[in-house]
Amino acid sequence: MKKTIAIDMDGVLADIESHFLRRYLTETGITLTRSDIIEPKGAQTLESRTTAYLNEPGFFRSIPVMQGAVEAVKKLMEDFDVYIVSAAMEFPLSLFEKQQWLAEHFPFIKWNNIVLCGDKNIIKTDYLIDDHCKNLDYCHGKAIMFDAYHNLDKHQHQRVKSWTEVLMIMRGER
Amino acid sequence: MKKTIAIDMDGVLADIESHFLRRYLTETGITLTRSDIIEPKGAQTLESRTTAYLNEPGFFRSIPVMQGAVEAVKKLMEDFDVYIVSAAMEFPLSLFEKQQWLAEHFPFIKWNNIVLCGDKNIIKTDYLIDDHCKNLDYCHGKAIMFDAYHNLDKHQHQRVKSWTEVLMIMRGER
Repeated sequence: MKKTIAIDMDGVLADIESHFLRRYLTETGITLTRSDIIEPKGAQTLESRTTAYLNEPGFFRSIPVMQGAVEAVKKLMEDFDVYIVSAAMEFPLSLFEKQQWLAEHFPFIKWNNIVLCGDKNIIKTDYLIDDHCKNLDYCHGKAIMFDAYHNLDKHQHQRVKSWTEVLMIMRGER
Repeated sequence: MKKTIAIDMDGVLADIESHFLRRYLTETGITLTRSDIIEPKGAQTLESRTTAYLNEPGFFRSIPVMQGAVEAVKKLMEDFDVYIVSAAMEFPLSLFEKQQWLAEHFPFIKWNNIVLCGDKNIIKTDYLIDDHCKNLDYCHGKAIMFDAYHNLDKHQHQRVKSWTEVLMIMRGER
């Protein structure tokens, strides 16, 4: 039986960081970079607007795909049972948009392997690739933290900075 | 720490059986009863139409609540961590409708505790209350099978015929 991997969407498959920055530029005319929004120092810069953006119709549907994600997920599926596990229930509008986004960018992932949830603490897989410690800290399997502007001050999990790094790690876990 | 229960929606919280029969009557003018649709004998009677119904906008949003479900779930939440776990990904239109249905009928369940998924085999709870053996057969915890027209020939799990029976069983599991 193949080992199981749960893969998060926002900040892992979907490049929400650049999407936030682009949306902020459209709204305010101000160009921010990662160094402006790194938490905890820069948290307030963007955080005052993110909740509004997350509730906008179409926001989740138009997030760009994280570089290398499509090819990497295809590769992982050769050796692992891959599940997409996204905390979507907080933003009900995102439910259909996330399903549609996956159908467009990852059409090779079957509906059987998609989970849209609230908290992730009843998800049991051998690995969790996620950018949030609130999920990684309580996962049942091995935690892999995808690098993000909001987790640079967290060090309790193995950090990966790209999908190339994910593939390198997972090559030894088959 | 409280023990965890995963509770299915269709056929458990939501009375999809009576909803199917009512929809069939509206479409065909024919009144069916449970004895007409019991599987495997009666499977073809209704099954030829259910896929069409499940893809109709509004179908999931208008399912009646199963008798006694609201009070029973409230009661269970006193002693257990209750999660709603519904296989919704096969029918993308159902995602938002199921969230809205829960918000209307079970407003006391927080978004954190709702999971809309495909297969349920990466869900790990101490108990699963469900009407489908495809879920119950592979659950990590104790399986409780909610009585339904399509599972009367299945006997591998403890059967409950009502929410009153669920409460009786779970009283001994706290």
